[in-house]
Amino acid sequence: MYKLWIANKNYSSWSLRPWILLKVLNIPFDENICYFEVGIGKSSHDKFKSFSPSGLVPCLVDGKQTVWDSLAISEYLYEEYPQVWPTDKNARTWARCASAEMHSGFSVLRQTCPMNLSHQSPLEKISRELQADLNRLQQLWQEGFTTFGGPWLAGAQFTAVDAFFAPIAFRIRSYQLPVSNAAQQWVDRMIALPAMQEWYHSALTEPVVEHI
Amino acid sequence: MYKLWIANKNYSSWSLRPWILLKVLNIPFDENICYFEVGIGKSSHDKFKSFSPSGLVPCLVDGKQTVWDSLAISEYLYEEYPQVWPTDKNARTWARCASAEMHSGFSVLRQTCPMNLSHQSPLEKISRELQADLNRLQQLWQEGFTTFGGPWLAGAQFTAVDAFFAPIAFRIRSYQLPVSNAAQQWVDRMIALPAMQEWYHSALTEPVVEHI
Repeated sequence: MYKLWIANKNYSSWSLRPWILLKVLNIPFDENICYFEVGIGKSSHDKFKSFSPSGLVPCLVDGKQTVWDSLAISEYLYEEYPQVWPTDKNARTWARCASAEMHSGFSVLRQTCPMNLSHQSPLEKISRELQADLNRLQQLWQEGFTTFGGPWLAGAQFTAVDAFFAPIAFRIRSYQLPVSNAAQQWVDRMIALPAMQEWYHSALTEPVVEHI
Repeated sequence: MYKLWIANKNYSSWSLRPWILLKVLNIPFDENICYFEVGIGKSSHDKFKSFSPSGLVPCLVDGKQTVWDSLAISEYLYEEYPQVWPTDKNARTWARCASAEMHSGFSVLRQTCPMNLSHQSPLEKISRELQADLNRLQQLWQEGFTTFGGPWLAGAQFTAVDAFFAPIAFRIRSYQLPVSNAAQQWVDRMIALPAMQEWYHSALTEPVVEHI
């Protein structure tokens, strides 16, 4: 059985990605939560180092194999579960590019609107840089819908690229970010998933939800 | 024939990654250089948008297929060329994790020591944060050497994980960063590769090498 190490569901957007992928694809796993250290100046790095070589979450453990990055986890799972990426080569390539762009990009959106599921209020101001990230996001998603026909980002099936943007769905709702109808429909479809609801409600019951 | 879009060889560390991978694995491709815009406040984003949907380099074009991220390029090539990643599953998983960690991490090292092949002088001061990145880098590489036997990061063959750290080899030399003997041996081995020499000497002849 896979063991997936994650941090607080309220905050850890990276943890959500493989978790939602495993859940939606019905791949069995044991969930292990290691909460962030609380307090100014405290780092969770040393704590996480006990199971993750980079000191970061998520981290998948499969027997003696440790897989310590979300994209690498997707590729690791793909070797056993072909449904992780789209079957069609064009869609698979697009999905990998979009996921990798999320993996290293959208930094303004990530910094300005950190995932915080207990937060529900609109952003006071959308900076030019944030709007640029939102524009790129919607352009990318629209390309996916137009090219592969929806309703998921890379076609008819939920795949890893939807998982990679799952935290963005929560952010758009939390901060009431203005997006196109097509983008909003995907956000609503994502959040309505039973697994996303499970994550969300679990997050709100966590013992520590502020001042990490 | 693949077409690989890259930016200035002197500066573009992301461009170097797929370029060196293709070269060392003897995969034929056409190189297309699009130089960064020059001048304060100038952005290359719009220029790069003409061939890359994210406005970033590198970007691989294969007929009608556009692959606009370095990790996605590696996976795209792997579907045709199994030598892109190690044959052994443990080594392949490790190589993907290490490459993904480079893809989204080591931000202090990247910001403090930008790749600049015409720069050759030691860094005045190594901050605590930079030292932390260097420590993690050496720990990671050492794990690779110890587990898979070297001389490359994930075993006996040069694979995509070596390509992902290729710009770090140049940075360690340019800024004379202090690293372990094992790390320095890998740096020297990388820089001695004919393809790395070709990139380096080509970089020094570029028309624009400062003030991007």
